[in-house]
Amino acid sequence: MAADKHTAAIIGGGVIGGGWAARFLLNGWDVRVSDPDPEAERKINEVLANARRSLPGLYNQKLPPEGELTFAASIADAVDGADWIQESVPERLEIKQSVLGEIQAAAPAGAVIASSTSGFKPSELADGAANPGQILVAHPYNPVYLLPLVEVVRHPDVSDDIVARAMHLLTAAGMKPVQIKKEIDAHIGDRLLEAVWREALWLIKDDYATTEEIDDIMRYSFGIRWAQMGLFETYRTAGGEAGMEHFIAQFAPALAWPWSRLTDVPDLDAALTKKIAAQSDAQSGNHSIRELERLRDNNLVAIMRALKGQDWGAGALLNQHDARLRTQEDVDWSGPVETANRVVPLDWLDYNGHMNETHYLEVVSKACDRFLILLGCDSTYIEAGNSYFTVENIINHIDEANAGDTIRVESRIIEGGGKKLHLYHELLAADGHTLATAEQMLIHVSLETRRSSLPEEPVASVLESAIAAQTQMQRPEGLKAGKQ
Amino acid sequence: MAADKHTAAIIGGGVIGGGWAARFLLNGWDVRVSDPDPEAERKINEVLANARRSLPGLYNQKLPPEGELTFAASIADAVDGADWIQESVPERLEIKQSVLGEIQAAAPAGAVIASSTSGFKPSELADGAANPGQILVAHPYNPVYLLPLVEVVRHPDVSDDIVARAMHLLTAAGMKPVQIKKEIDAHIGDRLLEAVWREALWLIKDDYATTEEIDDIMRYSFGIRWAQMGLFETYRTAGGEAGMEHFIAQFAPALAWPWSRLTDVPDLDAALTKKIAAQSDAQSGNHSIRELERLRDNNLVAIMRALKGQDWGAGALLNQHDARLRTQEDVDWSGPVETANRVVPLDWLDYNGHMNETHYLEVVSKACDRFLILLGCDSTYIEAGNSYFTVENIINHIDEANAGDTIRVESRIIEGGGKKLHLYHELLAADGHTLATAEQMLIHVSLETRRSSLPEEPVASVLESAIAAQTQMQRPEGLKAGKQ
Repeated sequence: MAADKHTAAIIGGGVIGGGWAARFLLNGWDVRVSDPDPEAERKINEVLANARRSLPGLYNQKLPPEGELTFAASIADAVDGADWIQESVPERLEIKQSVLGEIQAAAPAGAVIASSTSGFKPSELADGAANPGQILVAHPYNPVYLLPLVEVVRHPDVSDDIVARAMHLLTAAGMKPVQIKKEIDAHIGDRLLEAVWREALWLIKDDYATTEEIDDIMRYSFGIRWAQMGLFETYRTAGGEAGMEHFIAQFAPALAWPWSRLTDVPDLDAALTKKIAAQSDAQSGNHSIRELERLRDNNLVAIMRALKGQDWGAGALLNQHDARLRTQEDVDWSGPVETANRVVPLDWLDYNGHMNETHYLEVVSKACDRFLILLGCDSTYIEAGNSYFTVENIINHIDEANAGDTIRVESRIIEGGGKKLHLYHELLAADGHTLATAEQMLIHVSLETRRSSLPEEPVASVLESAIAAQTQMQRPEGLKAGKQ
Repeated sequence: MAADKHTAAIIGGGVIGGGWAARFLLNGWDVRVSDPDPEAERKINEVLANARRSLPGLYNQKLPPEGELTFAASIADAVDGADWIQESVPERLEIKQSVLGEIQAAAPAGAVIASSTSGFKPSELADGAANPGQILVAHPYNPVYLLPLVEVVRHPDVSDDIVARAMHLLTAAGMKPVQIKKEIDAHIGDRLLEAVWREALWLIKDDYATTEEIDDIMRYSFGIRWAQMGLFETYRTAGGEAGMEHFIAQFAPALAWPWSRLTDVPDLDAALTKKIAAQSDAQSGNHSIRELERLRDNNLVAIMRALKGQDWGAGALLNQHDARLRTQEDVDWSGPVETANRVVPLDWLDYNGHMNETHYLEVVSKACDRFLILLGCDSTYIEAGNSYFTVENIINHIDEANAGDTIRVESRIIEGGGKKLHLYHELLAADGHTLATAEQMLIHVSLETRRSSLPEEPVASVLESAIAAQTQMQRPEGLKAGKQ
């Protein structure tokens, strides 16, 4: 299904308005922005640049062609003919009400008028409006172009039809609208954030922790959990065999303890316990605790390994542990060189129930990186503007591998000299049998010109002696790389 | 550096004690467990099974050989000669004090005795102990074998030497110990969790949201953010050009508003604002806001794409959007078939500043999946026990690709018939020039026997007509797959 063509009016072009503009534009909507700030165009274009570099690559499909971005001279010009109007002006009720009045004076009667308000209830925004039934809250999270959640909040005058249309359009823009049952100050998410914020302020004020310590405590623990399961499914999973009611009962005493400076607490009595347990059953009851544990662990592994690729937070910690685990010994070039000894992670499996072919090449690619480092092509060499690019990869799959299996790689030089380097890798199981073989043809390059070049020192010298030693070995049969 | 050999005594073998046991064992430590529960051995082994399937694959290096796990008949037997003793018994002060007394009666004087307590201060635990200076808090997060954070809390009698040893040993076990400056009930992380928990209980009690809605609101928004940056670095980044002080000032009024049922709030005055801003500068001031935005977006992309691979949460949403974006048309087998049209994501780049070779094969592998679906080898066919395995991949790299670049793939059958299928893919840039070519030799298999088999219906028939049409095209030159 091709995306329908829509026009959004963005009223207020700050970080949030700009994020909405980018989200809609990259999903093919036309966008008209109204903002009195003379810097609005520059600011929106900066948000849009961030969005263009990050959002389209999230998908395995190409997004529809980008919509047209225009800057309107007035609110009236912006909203004329728009089917979605997003208000993101400063968080002051009288400003929002006045802007909503201007919007309604010119907007199509059937358009959705949504406010990005963090705190106000939709009934407050619509109070005194010409057409209150057209105004609802669609509260997003920054960065709006990446994070999918939108809290959709109605008041009693908003028709089911408008709400349904809002949910549909947000879904079509790749977002996750969650309709809030009853309006409440700050909706749901910002209430939870506000609770953490208030407690964090006490901790800093009273010198129990710094901002960095609080941030680290969050992003190395429950932050990773909450990227995949929220509070309740996490606790259900942690509760283990005893079940949700038992687990909640364990929490009850802590509500009376000084575990927070925030002291207004509900009575966690039998009625509330049963209510939570029943809702949790409805939410997660289709999975056993054992299944939930494994789903959780699969997700945590995938998230932590994603951060590992970015060398950030919990992922940087994994890289540091790798560095501790790596035994650096003198290389014996007279035989094959061990370039990997690792375990297949959970996130490498595919629908055939085994390690996907992509990750055979990932193992080979990382083994090649290691081999190159041993040849002197390390981060210093690369920062100086030299590296190797692969021009050909040939992988022969001999056996399957599964999560938890050990894979060792032995690598060797088949031929080298000049700009070319022909490597051969054997991927071995724990019992020594061959899982796959790989040939790689590499070419030395200048990272400045992106063209082939001769190796420089120290690689040139190391390579010379390595090639002399490595090419003494008998060649594997059936080599193909570099041949036409 | 090889891991040193250590022995841990695990006193209390529930979910947390079992997690500690697994973390230490998989990092090469010997572990002795003491727990009066007759089910303790079974429970620990279940946690250990979860840990074995998930932890070792986090690393690119093999962990040291697993340590030895024994079940001790008594606390005295367990702690004898141990250098780390981890107490994880129920959260009641008199039980913990009594168990710590038993531990100290038999433990080596130099051992670290650490409590997993969520709530008690170390001075409370050590009150009346024979050797209070040996007792500290090391509070982990579930699952302990995966999540790295440990809050290390001392009381005044604990020596710097013991704290330093604790920090070193936890780091060596791949964890992230954060030393808490001053002891406080529930340390830091559980205070933040308790704040969210209290607010969430109100929301459920008063029927504003269900457990599932609260969980969704968390895991589609700030949960993803907090997996990589905590509260303060996130707000600093969101504050944009105006800076941290300005951003905090924006929050100040909300503390007086009814944004939470939790009403005990500090005064966010100039002094506290400056304190936070100064700490934030010390934490993140080495990055500009623009850099922080890009680091954040890189991380968010990597995390969301990791969840995509698991088809879970925010990642499942991306898959749903892919399905909406995919245009299903009748396949014209008379020419090459478009099997991908996508954008290179941020997390595919490597140290050479371009799309890593691994992801060329990832694109090819996904294009192949798509081609197979068009041939009838879809999820239904696979669930019935039939599939294709790749036996050979040959990739020729012709040009570089970068994040944000479009890649289109055109795929075709070179030869087929019987169990074999020889595919050819061309990876094309937006302007139509060739980035890479790939050959794949596939073999039809039974997923039950994991052996080659003949295609079944509907694949057999679709394949027959597809092969007849596709092999009319002129063959590409230089094909190599399947040749010895």
